[in-house]
Parts: sequence; structure tokens; C-alpha cells
Amino acid sequence: MIKPPHFPLASDIITAHQNISAFTHRTPVLSSAFFNAQCDASLFFKCENFQKAGAFKSRGAINAVLSLSQDELEAGVATHSSGNHAQALARAAKILGTKAYIVMPRTAPAIKVAAVKAYGGEVYFCEPNQEARETKLAEVVAKTGACFIHPYNDYRIITGQATACKEILEEIDSPDYIFCPVGGGGLLSGTALAAAYWSPKTKVIGCEPQGADDAFRSFQAKKLIPMIKPETVADGLLTSLGSLTFPIILENVHAIFCVNDTQIIQAMRLVWERMKIIIEPSAAVPLAVVLSGQVNLKNKKAVIIFSGGNVDLNNLLWA
Amino acid sequence: MIKPPHFPLASDIITAHQNISAFTHRTPVLSSAFFNAQCDASLFFKCENFQKAGAFKSRGAINAVLSLSQDELEAGVATHSSGNHAQALARAAKILGTKAYIVMPRTAPAIKVAAVKAYGGEVYFCEPNQEARETKLAEVVAKTGACFIHPYNDYRIITGQATACKEILEEIDSPDYIFCPVGGGGLLSGTALAAAYWSPKTKVIGCEPQGADDAFRSFQAKKLIPMIKPETVADGLLTSLGSLTFPIILENVHAIFCVNDTQIIQAMRLVWERMKIIIEPSAAVPLAVVLSGQVNLKNKKAVIIFSGGNVDLNNLLWA
Repeated sequence: MIKPPHFPLASDIITAHQNISAFTHRTPVLSSAFFNAQCDASLFFKCENFQKAGAFKSRGAINAVLSLSQDELEAGVATHSSGNHAQALARAAKILGTKAYIVMPRTAPAIKVAAVKAYGGEVYFCEPNQEARETKLAEVVAKTGACFIHPYNDYRIITGQATACKEILEEIDSPDYIFCPVGGGGLLSGTALAAAYWSPKTKVIGCEPQGADDAFRSFQAKKLIPMIKPETVADGLLTSLGSLTFPIILENVHAIFCVNDTQIIQAMRLVWERMKIIIEPSAAVPLAVVLSGQVNLKNKKAVIIFSGGNVDLNNLLWA
Repeated sequence: MIKPPHFPLASDIITAHQNISAFTHRTPVLSSAFFNAQCDASLFFKCENFQKAGAFKSRGAINAVLSLSQDELEAGVATHSSGNHAQALARAAKILGTKAYIVMPRTAPAIKVAAVKAYGGEVYFCEPNQEARETKLAEVVAKTGACFIHPYNDYRIITGQATACKEILEEIDSPDYIFCPVGGGGLLSGTALAAAYWSPKTKVIGCEPQGADDAFRSFQAKKLIPMIKPETVADGLLTSLGSLTFPIILENVHAIFCVNDTQIIQAMRLVWERMKIIIEPSAAVPLAVVLSGQVNLKNKKAVIIFSGGNVDLNNLLWA
């Protein structure tokens, strides 16, 4: 058997699911009479906002760390992220008794820095640009010998994220659609692979903010077009597709649709009001696509992935 | 068999539960590793914030309306309430194809008036004081012949609210404690009765805001002491105990504890942040009591009732 990381096969996703289950929640799938009536469809919401550390990222992070050799594990893990991957990796490292070195922009919200530190992560600050974070990460890796775990462009991460869709398909029989947010493409590529393996008739739809629409444009052009200056309230979806996630998406995703920030905020608020659950802006993007009417869902069965629930309650977007 | 309303027997709660089940959710019971660690206890959260119309009030309202004769039903129902009972009764009337006449203070938030109207309720405004609302209600009842459904001081309402505790005890075996908010006492008396019938060793604890502590004082004095000028962020708990709810509480509740508004807001915010679910201030009161340490819960099993999730997202209490 080839050792990971390698292209995720169905058997890898099954193994990953077994491995991570002691450290992650099997999150619930909820429904809402209100949204069903709004869309004249049967909608199902996979609630990764209830996942450990508040987002699906815990799946990939723990799967990646579990796949390390004993030597690799002892040297620790490193990444650059100001968001949910940072927390998830710090948590995974703590569970397995090793160190996590996290490079964060010095402009990262205090609340996110505190969350990483609460999981025992060691934080290194850098200037808030791509070059600075890569330089700082290289420094940290050189100094510590830690293993770099990329937030999404890593087959172990993609395999871990795919387990959410595996759970969906174990509960919802042959959905017509699965709507999934796309930033760097870890969750979307994992979801598309799992659907291709276990429910090939299900159409997987990528959902992206207009202000960070590199996946939309790359998908049309059939080549990677990185985002230069992303700008959206969906702060988890600022990143561009990677060399590993893009080919999987190109081959297995049905379509990608975009929505603007107003639509995202509106969808997020409706979920808080009607479903009484907290989702973050990035997690509201797929529902915003559904509510935009770009896909005709009349009498269809569709799953919407709520990817996370980490928001700053001091800065509500509609305030 | 005696027709309702009469003192709720175990068999009445069982019948009510069967009757309302087509119109209410069996709400989930959640747990939280964070809160378990905070309290060194096993805590279970009964999520009535996910109930129809956003609060446990839907149980009592539909049970009361279902108990009406055909003649009574045709004349419609009436109540005075600016809160969750108003919405719940309007919804119940709509389901059974009759009218709901709701007296609300002219100062009621527009969002609550809109919610009642969205369920087809007919709203009558009055001055924001007890005398004015009773006068206006009497007028409405005289004019329409509608049946007055009191928000809590009614055995049909108490029986309906008791079904939440019945569900709790079907899922959680012999909890040491159940923490329940208390305003007028409909939920607390129903909970205490259900516990007395099906889990007599379980101690039911009433949880009240310091700024509306009539239940606390009445319980100590063993006589009804109505609240003169209640003032608390827990806007669902401003009312005083009633002549029917108080004797049940006095006989079946173990103790009543109070918390201040700061503690309530803190508990509410922690739930939003850690559990990613939305609860209203009144629903946070029992958790605030638990976090206050007034009851030693070490290694105990305790249920906390999240009574509702209707908040105005434009006016967050910590903003």
C-alpha cells in the first residue's frame, strides 16, 4: 500500500473516517420548514459549525497529523493561517502530544490568536502579505524541523475534509445537489470526490463570494487563475485554489456559482433568525447561492454544507 | 373523565404529548465538552430554542387550543402578551383554522408585532401597563366572544409545557437536577410535575433573574408576592407567578436561585460562542445559575432547559 499523501481513493476516505472519528464530531444534518418553503425543495444542512474547534477544518488537520511518522510527529507541525485551519492544527497537535507552530499576520484578530494559543499553539507573527508569511514559515520550519501542513493543498487534508460528505451520503439517500463553499478548495475537492465515489448522480456545486471568485474564473477557463486582491466578508474563502485541489474540482464539480456580500450577510442572518444556529459568513455562501435562484431546485433534494461557526460576536456584519 | 382544564395528571401530560406531537418538534438534547469541563459535571441541554415559533410556548398554546370545543374554537382565542406566547397562540390558531386576537403594549418591538401578524394574529394595542392590557383584553373578548388563553395560569398551558420534561426524561435517565427558568411559572410547574411523576428523585431547580425575583421571594415566604417593577434583560421572565402555578411549584420544586443581568448576558454569550446556537436572555438564566456555582454539581448529571431563541439581532446585549 502506498503511504499517504497520495491521491485520495475511496478506501483512503473510509480509513480516514475511522481514524478521525475519536477526535471529531459526527455533526448533525438539520432541516428547516422555513427554507424548504422558500425554495420549494427539500434542503438538508450539514452542520460543521458544530464540529470541534468550530469548523470542518478539524477533520483534515487531525487526519494529516495522524498520518505522520513517529519521527515527523516529534518534530511538530507548522502552517500559516489566520483562520480555522490554525485552530484545527493546533488542536490536532495538542491531542497527539506534539507542538504546532502557527504563522499569523500581525493584523490577525486578537480573538483568533487567543484561540490558537488556547490549544497550545506557538504563534509567530509576520507582515500581512503572502511573501512575508511564506518567508516566516520557511524560517520556522528550518529552525524547528516541523512538518508543514498546508491548509488545503495536501492530499491528507483533502481526504480528511471528504469525510463530511461521506457522512452526508450515509444519511441522505442520493441528493440531487450538494452545495459547498470554495476558498482554497480543500472541502470542495473532498466533497466532490466522495460524491463521485458513493453517489455519482449527485451534482456538487461550488459556491464562492464574488469578491474572491478565482475558482469561478479558473473553472470556466480550465486553468488556474489566482486571485490578486480578494475582498469579501467571507473571510474563510479569501484563498485561491491549489495545484492539487483544482484538477479534482475541474473533473468532479458540476458548476460554480457566485454571490455578493449583501446576499451572504442576508443568508447568514436568516439562518441565525430562523434556525437559531450560528454560522460564519463563509458558511452562508452556499445557502446564499441557493436563495439567489441561480439553480432551479423545485422539488429537488439538496444538501447545503454549513462549513463553520466562528464569528466575532463583537462585530456583527449587519450592525 | 373530567374535561380539561383540570389539575394535570400524568395521564393528561401523556395525552397532551400525543396530541401536540404533529404540531411541535421533539427538540434535541445537546451536550458540550466545554461546559462539562467548566462544571465538572455531565450537562444536557434541552433545546426549546429550536421549537416551533422559537420557544417552548408552542407546546402549551397548541395544547390549549386543541382542548377547545368546536363552538369555542370557532369564536377564536385571545391573550395579552408581547412575547413568545403571543406568537405561539397566533400560530396555534392558524393551524386549527381560527382567529387569534392578541393584545400587545404599543411599545412592543416592531419585530414581535410583525411575527404575530405573520402567523395571522390580529393585534390590538394598549398602553404598556397591567391595567390597560386587562381592560383592552376584556373589551376584545366581549366584542369577539373569543376564549382567553392565559400565558401560564391555565392548566392546559401547564400540561402542554410539561411535555418538554417528559421528553427529557425519556432520553436522560434519572438526572440529578433539572434547571428551568421561571417567569409566570408555566414551564417550571409543568417541569416539576413531570419530574414528580416520572423521576421523583430528580431535583427541579427554578432559575430567576434578580431583577424579577418574585418566585424566589414567594417560595421563601410560602405565599404569593407579586413583582411590582421587574427590571431585567430576561424579557421573557418579567411576569409574576400565578394562582395555579405557585402551589405546584411550592410542592414540587427543590429550590429557586437568582442571577443578575451580567451573569445572564455572559452565559448567553458563552452559549453562542461555544455551542454555536442562539438562545434568548431568558433561556440563559438556568445556565447562569449553574455557572454561578450556587449548586455543587461535581460529578452530577444535570439538565438545563434552553427555553427559547427569539432575540433581536439588531440589539445585542453586549454591543
